[in-house]
This record gives sequence, C-alpha cells and structure tokens, in this order.
Amino acid sequence: MLIKNLGEQGLLALIRPYCIPQSIGDDGAIIHPPADCELVVTTDVLVDGVHFSDRTTSPFDVGWRSVAANLSDLAAMGARPLGITVGLSLPPELPVVWLEQLYQGMQACLSSYGTGIIGGDLTRSIVRTVAITALGAVNPERLIRRHTAMPGDAIVITGYHGNADGGLKLLLDSQLGQNLTLEDRQILIQAHQHPQPRLDVLPILDRLRDDTSTIFQIAGMDSSDGLADAIVQICRSSQVGAIIDRAAIPIAPALTHIYPDSALDSALYGGEDFELVLCMPETIATQLVASLDSPGKRLRQQGAAIIGKITQQLAISIVDPTQQYPTLNLDMQSGFKHF
Amino acid sequence: MLIKNLGEQGLLALIRPYCIPQSIGDDGAIIHPPADCELVVTTDVLVDGVHFSDRTTSPFDVGWRSVAANLSDLAAMGARPLGITVGLSLPPELPVVWLEQLYQGMQACLSSYGTGIIGGDLTRSIVRTVAITALGAVNPERLIRRHTAMPGDAIVITGYHGNADGGLKLLLDSQLGQNLTLEDRQILIQAHQHPQPRLDVLPILDRLRDDTSTIFQIAGMDSSDGLADAIVQICRSSQVGAIIDRAAIPIAPALTHIYPDSALDSALYGGEDFELVLCMPETIATQLVASLDSPGKRLRQQGAAIIGKITQQLAISIVDPTQQYPTLNLDMQSGFKHF
Repeated sequence: MLIKNLGEQGLLALIRPYCIPQSIGDDGAIIHPPADCELVVTTDVLVDGVHFSDRTTSPFDVGWRSVAANLSDLAAMGARPLGITVGLSLPPELPVVWLEQLYQGMQACLSSYGTGIIGGDLTRSIVRTVAITALGAVNPERLIRRHTAMPGDAIVITGYHGNADGGLKLLLDSQLGQNLTLEDRQILIQAHQHPQPRLDVLPILDRLRDDTSTIFQIAGMDSSDGLADAIVQICRSSQVGAIIDRAAIPIAPALTHIYPDSALDSALYGGEDFELVLCMPETIATQLVASLDSPGKRLRQQGAAIIGKITQQLAISIVDPTQQYPTLNLDMQSGFKHF
Repeated sequence: MLIKNLGEQGLLALIRPYCIPQSIGDDGAIIHPPADCELVVTTDVLVDGVHFSDRTTSPFDVGWRSVAANLSDLAAMGARPLGITVGLSLPPELPVVWLEQLYQGMQACLSSYGTGIIGGDLTRSIVRTVAITALGAVNPERLIRRHTAMPGDAIVITGYHGNADGGLKLLLDSQLGQNLTLEDRQILIQAHQHPQPRLDVLPILDRLRDDTSTIFQIAGMDSSDGLADAIVQICRSSQVGAIIDRAAIPIAPALTHIYPDSALDSALYGGEDFELVLCMPETIATQLVASLDSPGKRLRQQGAAIIGKITQQLAISIVDPTQQYPTLNLDMQSGFKHF
C-alpha cells in the first residue's frame, strides 16, 4: 500500500492514534503552559539523503532520532517537554508502512520522556523531509543558556562522545570494526540509532540547586554538532576561554577498538551524541558527576565527567598533562558546518 | 552568489537581522507566554512545485504566504501571535537573493501583525521546503474551536472567497481575464500573493464580548482549504448541519467577470483565501458584520456577511431563495484532499 492510495482520510486515521487526542481537531494544537514558566521552542529539519538514508536508518530510527534531537535541545536549556509538532513532506509513492514505522519511532522516544505529538502538517514532496518543532517549559531561574559561562566554572560533559559517529561509520563500512565484540558493536550502533536526550539530568540539577544555599547559574548546550563545537559556542557566547584535559574526556573502549589512533577526533568532532556540555561551580560539578555515576549504573555509560575549566583568557586549549600529546587549540571562530 | 558559497557563518549573518534578537543564540528560542493563557501551536509545510513555483510566486510572496497561512490558523482559534520558527531546506545551488527575499516577505507579513521570527533551522535539500510553526496565546474563554457550533448559530464569513483562486488562475493562464480592468486583476492577484490573515477580527470580537452581558461561544476555523471545506469541518466536528443562502455569499465583481458561470464554485472550493468562518448567536453576528463594514472601508472588501444558519439536522444545503438554482448539498464526509 502506497501513501497515494490511502487518501486524506486514511492518512489522518493512520496518524491520529499517535497524537494526543485533546490537542487535535482544530487549526492549531492547544496546550496549557505551566504557570510562570519560560517557553522554549526548537525546530529541526531532517532531510532524506542528508540526515538519514535507507542504508543506515530504518523509518523507526528516523522517527526516534528526529524526536531525540529536539528533546535534546530542550534538555540543553533546562526545559521539560510539553509536546511536538511534526511537519512531514513525503513522496506519494512511499509505502504506508514507512510512515507508520516513522510514527512508531517518534512515539517510542516521546513516551520514554512522558510527552507526545500535539499537531502537524502532512504534504507531498519529491524528498522525504521531517520538520519537528518541540515546545518545553522551564522555570526562568533554571534556564540554561550559552552566554553565562564564568571564568572558574568547571566544564561537565555527560556520557560518551564519538559513539554515535562510530556507530554510523560501522553501518556505512562493513569492513570496519571486525575485531569488535557484538556488545561493543551494539553500544556504538545504538548511540547512532537511538540517542538518549539527557532530560534525566534536569531533576538532578534541580535537587543540587535545592540542596545548596548558594545561587548559581548553569551555562551550557547539547553536543549535537560535536563536543568541540559545543565548547566553542559556549566560549564565544560567554566571551571566555577554556582549558580542557585531554585525558579527562571519556572515550568508550569500543570506540578505541575501532579507532586506536583517532578516537579523540571522533569524540571532539563526530557529533550527534546529544549529550550535555555544562558549565557550573566546581563543587556543584563534582556533586553532579557523583549523582550520575551512582551505583547500579555502568561506570560512565550514563555518567558524567569534569573535563576542564572556563578561563578568562579567550583561547580554547586541549592539553595533555602527561605531555605525550601536543596541546590542541580550537579555533573560536569556527563551528560545525551545516551547508 | 549561491547559498553554498556563503558558508554557515555567512548564512547566519544574513538571517540574523530578520530574527528577534533576544530569542536566538541558544539551542531553542525563549518566549515568555502571557499569564493564564492557552497556547496555540500550528505548523504548515510549503513545498516547491506543490504550494508555490517560480512561475506564479516570487520568493517574497512565498515568505508572505507561508507566514499568512500560519497566522490565519492562529486567528482561526482566536489567538494572538507570539512568534514563529522557520525550518528551511534549500538546494546549495540556490541564489542567496532568493533566501533574502523569502525572509523579506516573511518579515513584511510578520511585522504587519506585530510579531517576528524567534528561531528555526536551515539545512540542504534537493527541493525548497518552508516549514513554519507559529505560536499564539489566547484567553481560554475566548478560544475559537470547530466543535462548538450550536443549532441556531448564524454563520459569518469575512471577506471575499474565490479571489485567491481567481488570482492564481490569472497567473497561470495569460489568456484568462482579458476583459478585466487593471484594478480587478490586482484585487485577484493580491488575494493570491498577499493574503491577509484576519487577526484584525479578534479585537472586534473582544469588544463584542465585553459589551454584552450574555456569555456566548464562537465556533469556527479559517477557510484555507475552501469555504465549503470549512463549513463541512465545523458541522462534522460539532455534529450539526447548516443551511446556506447561496445569494448571501459575497462574490467579488472581478471574479464574476472572469467566471460568469462558475464564480460560486471558486468561492466554495478555491481555497487559500484565509478568511474566517465563524458561528455565533445571530445578534452578535449582526454586530460583527456591522463593525467590519464600518464607513471608510470599501463595502465587503474587508467586510463580513451572514451566509446561513447552523441546524440540528445533519445536512449541509446551499439553497437559492429565488429558486433560480437547484439546492446544492455538501457531502459531510468529504473534505479538502492534500494528497
């Protein structure tokens, strides 16, 4: 069955079960924001052949990843999701099962984080395009922004970086990683196919704020365009620099197994890990890392690490305390290139 | 100059002046919703070759129309705009001037209605696609929805229907409308190229509510998919029917000049006029029509008309009181087909 054979009513009937019922049926979706909150709105567009392809990404995974990318942007600002809208353009010749599995993937990710689809638009095109807008709410005092990093702040990153890039490379090159165990393979491929937006970090930050008498600001963003890009963006916005300890950047053993020499490059530039890069006072940073490395979780699998410090001097250096590797300087004017 | 030659930073520098400054620079846009409001969120996707083409629509007009369509969805629910996000996918070979004029068109429409661009995403694709999400706010008691029409309600429509369709046909067929005056041509083409979302109606409705002691509900939607579709959607959602007076549907003289026999078809099925179709008690409807037909405005150019009544009987009939034309029945199961 193709989309063009289903008809408008058939398409709506197929999509409706994936939407929050009370929000649809009008020209727009209706949501009731919590009192005294700031709204955070983020939009991401995924295009077939650019952000996904049938070769590496099932329709379920396109759905999962497109939602995860948007929820990660909310997490990056400290906001809890209120819902998403989905603007789809699809070729009429596309099998209906593709659309169905796309919505299954979106819903799987959304329901993991207690939210859902509130509206959208569906139209035809010659290229599959998924445009998602996510809405979130945050207490104005707990908003995380890029431009508030302060000299002396510790830089905390969650999870592993480079794994999503490693997973994508494994899917693209069947010769790569033949020495990997099945479990290592799975860790990397899962990082690419089912990234986990770090909304789990927000209640921990809330607790840390509630438990301390000092008021502090957290600056940060997510690492969707790579860890190096995130550090550059935060430093540029905040008019500060950073010193990063090369050895403190957690690298998954699986990534080192496929890239013995260049795992750090993947971690710095790979992108799409959707982890958080946060700047905060060191005492708070230490507590955050301890909270995320709690017993019962595999060490650093879901954990966090302090990788460096914000400096007044406007330069970003990745240093090796053992002096085995030369210092790496990140260009503060560069950034991830989408075009 | 092509988009691919401009580079990421160049593209951002080009777009930034069109965005509200305080909302950008983070993973998402930040907006502060008014207290005790409902949020309305609406998404529309426009695709090159489906919703616009270089033949009939300049980039400025693509921008204007894509914004107008979204603001019209907000007006249809009684909501004032808070801002929009713009998800663009564009071929790298596209001239930069196209992108610039697109943003000029969006901004021209947005600033007419006191709102702006708060965020978005820009990526490459083989087909130009504009995905806009608009956010609006409305007092929960003044929300306009489709499912609350009541038997006895008068049906009010704003403006002319069919003009946008007439304008598009004129642009597509140079043989058509050679008998038209330049002014008539302009009226029709403007209706297609620069539709006016009817946000101007909302303060009038507020005043009518404030001036009366009775509490009443307004049901409605916009006529983006055609007047007939709007009537069908409202009746279906509200589980009611309607009797429409054929002669009461305002038809622009210009439209009758090009379609002496089928102007009503254009008005009913043409679509994209972005007017409002509202159901309310007759006394209120009469006041609304009087307010919109105020002196100084050309009669019915920006006005409104009562075209019929909501009925308990589940049928939609378009009747001719002079019995010159047979009664037309709209199928309540049908609707506009997007695929």
